[in-house]
Amino acid sequence: MRPVLNWITNLTGALVWGVVLITLFGVGLRLLQVKLFYEPRPPEHLEQKQRYLESVAAEHRVDGRDVPNFIVVFFDDLGYGDLSSYGNQLIQTPRIDALAASGLRMTEFYASANVCTPSRAGLLTGRLPHRSGTGTHVFFSEESPIATFRKFMGAGNEILADEILLPEALGAAGYATGMVGKWHLGGTPGFLPNDFGFDSYYGVLWSNDMQPLHVYRDREIEIEDGTEKNSGRSYRDEEDPRPLRGIDQSQLTENYTDEAVRFIEANHDRAFFLYLAHSMPHVPHYASAKFAGTSEGGVYGDVVEDLDRSVGKIVDALERLGLADNTLLLVTSDNGADYGGSPGFLRGRKGEILEGGQRVPMVASWPGRIPPNESGAMAMNTDFLPTLLGLAGVPLPSDRVIDGRDLTPLFTRNAASPHEYLYYLAPSLLPGGPVVGAVRDARFKYLVSSGDQGRDRPHLTRLDADRENHDLRHKHPADAERLASAARAMQGALSANVRGWRPAP
Amino acid sequence: MRPVLNWITNLTGALVWGVVLITLFGVGLRLLQVKLFYEPRPPEHLEQKQRYLESVAAEHRVDGRDVPNFIVVFFDDLGYGDLSSYGNQLIQTPRIDALAASGLRMTEFYASANVCTPSRAGLLTGRLPHRSGTGTHVFFSEESPIATFRKFMGAGNEILADEILLPEALGAAGYATGMVGKWHLGGTPGFLPNDFGFDSYYGVLWSNDMQPLHVYRDREIEIEDGTEKNSGRSYRDEEDPRPLRGIDQSQLTENYTDEAVRFIEANHDRAFFLYLAHSMPHVPHYASAKFAGTSEGGVYGDVVEDLDRSVGKIVDALERLGLADNTLLLVTSDNGADYGGSPGFLRGRKGEILEGGQRVPMVASWPGRIPPNESGAMAMNTDFLPTLLGLAGVPLPSDRVIDGRDLTPLFTRNAASPHEYLYYLAPSLLPGGPVVGAVRDARFKYLVSSGDQGRDRPHLTRLDADRENHDLRHKHPADAERLASAARAMQGALSANVRGWRPAP
Repeated sequence: MRPVLNWITNLTGALVWGVVLITLFGVGLRLLQVKLFYEPRPPEHLEQKQRYLESVAAEHRVDGRDVPNFIVVFFDDLGYGDLSSYGNQLIQTPRIDALAASGLRMTEFYASANVCTPSRAGLLTGRLPHRSGTGTHVFFSEESPIATFRKFMGAGNEILADEILLPEALGAAGYATGMVGKWHLGGTPGFLPNDFGFDSYYGVLWSNDMQPLHVYRDREIEIEDGTEKNSGRSYRDEEDPRPLRGIDQSQLTENYTDEAVRFIEANHDRAFFLYLAHSMPHVPHYASAKFAGTSEGGVYGDVVEDLDRSVGKIVDALERLGLADNTLLLVTSDNGADYGGSPGFLRGRKGEILEGGQRVPMVASWPGRIPPNESGAMAMNTDFLPTLLGLAGVPLPSDRVIDGRDLTPLFTRNAASPHEYLYYLAPSLLPGGPVVGAVRDARFKYLVSSGDQGRDRPHLTRLDADRENHDLRHKHPADAERLASAARAMQGALSANVRGWRPAP
Repeated sequence: MRPVLNWITNLTGALVWGVVLITLFGVGLRLLQVKLFYEPRPPEHLEQKQRYLESVAAEHRVDGRDVPNFIVVFFDDLGYGDLSSYGNQLIQTPRIDALAASGLRMTEFYASANVCTPSRAGLLTGRLPHRSGTGTHVFFSEESPIATFRKFMGAGNEILADEILLPEALGAAGYATGMVGKWHLGGTPGFLPNDFGFDSYYGVLWSNDMQPLHVYRDREIEIEDGTEKNSGRSYRDEEDPRPLRGIDQSQLTENYTDEAVRFIEANHDRAFFLYLAHSMPHVPHYASAKFAGTSEGGVYGDVVEDLDRSVGKIVDALERLGLADNTLLLVTSDNGADYGGSPGFLRGRKGEILEGGQRVPMVASWPGRIPPNESGAMAMNTDFLPTLLGLAGVPLPSDRVIDGRDLTPLFTRNAASPHEYLYYLAPSLLPGGPVVGAVRDARFKYLVSSGDQGRDRPHLTRLDADRENHDLRHKHPADAERLASAARAMQGALSANVRGWRPAP
């Protein structure tokens, strides 16, 4: 008996230690590789990108042409129901509401993803986030262990260098290009806002719950966040007892606004593009001191009302400088409501494939060109790039798929949606990468998986009459199959050519 | 080196085996105890219960008195937004809508829990489910390993025997008492519907996704479900390729309805109480053949429209027998929407402490006594017992707390809510048992934990103006503290005297 027991004991110990050691060795090797030799995924179309930008600079300069200015105000985590013009009964947003009343209020507008990083990439590239290496959920500050984990998983932590961003194309055409606010598309040299066409930058590289959260001016740190490196802390909301050291989050909205107004003033006599990507109302929630405690919507309401007055200051600056009639102002959000925010009547929240995760407010204002209107046409922030380039008379690059469409007819004469289908990305870090989680047309939405309480099956919903509750696949089998087929086709196209390269002519 | 390695290997093996063996031994001992010696928790007030029922039988007989009949139609998992009279745009429920139009439609009515078992116990006892040993989430069929696990955890699998159920009190007073449908309060001898005051019973003991799902008539199996015992299968919806053997779920609604009508007919000349607890629209979803494919709301819509016509047949029977003017008909649901169902504009679904988990439709009809009306007063299904006993002239038991209140003034003259606060139970199997998860008053709801994406902190919401999104604790600190204090007081009272026993006079 005793020898047998000894033998079992020995064998078990050896097996356990063997498995542990082999695993540790493999993990260690991969970590070493990541730490010593990590490089961003190599660009594939850098040459084509340069040729495109050179041709824009040579043939499509806007000097002397009558082109509008562009301002994109991009909120972080503002939900579909967070503005009074989108049904909120506690939060008052009179300045945005005024733009919605005098301009175009869109009710079926989508971010290009349900989380920060891919949505921003979609806006700036005009392409579905899968294509730019950003479909792998959100990037983390370089000091974070999660950034290392991302690289360990092969997911990368920066947008791919050969992507053509809106400021690069507009800049090549002669626009002054400025960015203020949160970047979230990379944090190493070569991957900062100034490396992707912005003449000037002021803001933070990461979400305001990531550390360290330095404030940058162009490529340099202007305010250093002394928060301990690799702390792994995650700030949750205004009650967190561990504020950042160095920067005061309650000043972010006002500082951004002042910088944005300064940019407009400095460039009032030339065509400009301003991308104002607010850090708020992402958690933790900090409003400017003068708004603290003022909103009926609580701390979150204070933050949103602060943001509303920021938009007001932009509008005031445009009017003061006589630029209002020549400026297209777009106000929207990067994804649906998170903690403390409202998705309105929609089902789901940030990070979900349901409507509340991705449908956002969108107001387009351009006095004289965009009449007061409301539109239920579906559109996505990937449409910004082709719209703005079209208005600037700059052609699209020909070497790559641009998923977005020109919204000018929709803006100026309430035309129908330029899309037959819109695709919802399900961002994922897992191998195999992002997948098409859902697809919609004018009436139906087809979810590849309902994700509903573990009931992992497809779901067809009528967006005009139900909030993604009743599954109508058996009622409308032809529509279900049509949409499922569209989702499969897009998934197949992405699998075959995720970057969306087009053959040279 | 080698002796050291050997020593480590030996020690590791011994430790692993030691821990494994001790754990297995402990688990085995507890399983043996449960399997051999399990008994339901001993009753504490059985004698008081018997004395109460005897006094009702002796002093409060309804013979010769003018008392109304009572019918409670209790749906399973029907959501707040599943009826056309509650805003559904795809599902048509004309029969219930007609009752809502001619009677009272309540907009802030609650089940007493967000899952099946405790909600049913709350309705039938008039007490918060904590008190009757049913606050530990849902019971499982005796053959299920989860029933064993429940007992292993000390949670029990049946309602406590000394609880006084509505049919017992009404039966003692001379009412004919009949139950049709799903019981879900126990499955062993002594814990069946006929053991708790129902003269007659036809239905299933468990949810229709639990097996085996025999159909009982009184204490005997009438239709045996041949589904393999302990299969651990969980039926998800109409697409499940493994239907039950023996019973056809698509006949449940119609069979229940026919039995209910037969009960009404058989007792048309005396006071009766009918509790019709439908199995639908709980998953899996089966509509009667004649409704399959007919609803714009898909398979789920077919099921709900089938249920609506069932209510119509009850109403028709009452009118045919001349009983309508003397019958109080209550139509409601046991908890919020589950897979395929709609919570309307509410946040959350079945199993959640959010409104969508527990707020349900409630229609009260009594031609001549309840005028056409709508009420936003808060009430709960625990109010049924005191309301019905009050109308029957039967006093409440004095040895125990009855949490419910008499809704007659609210029904007949749209009086204000009899409650200052309503408490939301968070059912749990874990040691420590159920907790007060939230509390509301006429305007505010205070969630002890928002449960919101891992952000585990309290949350104050204005129910009149927001869907549990914006936390208003800092805006309304006095109200937050008042409600938090009410939640603490109830939690304390439950900890001190969970059964709610009152001292003998």
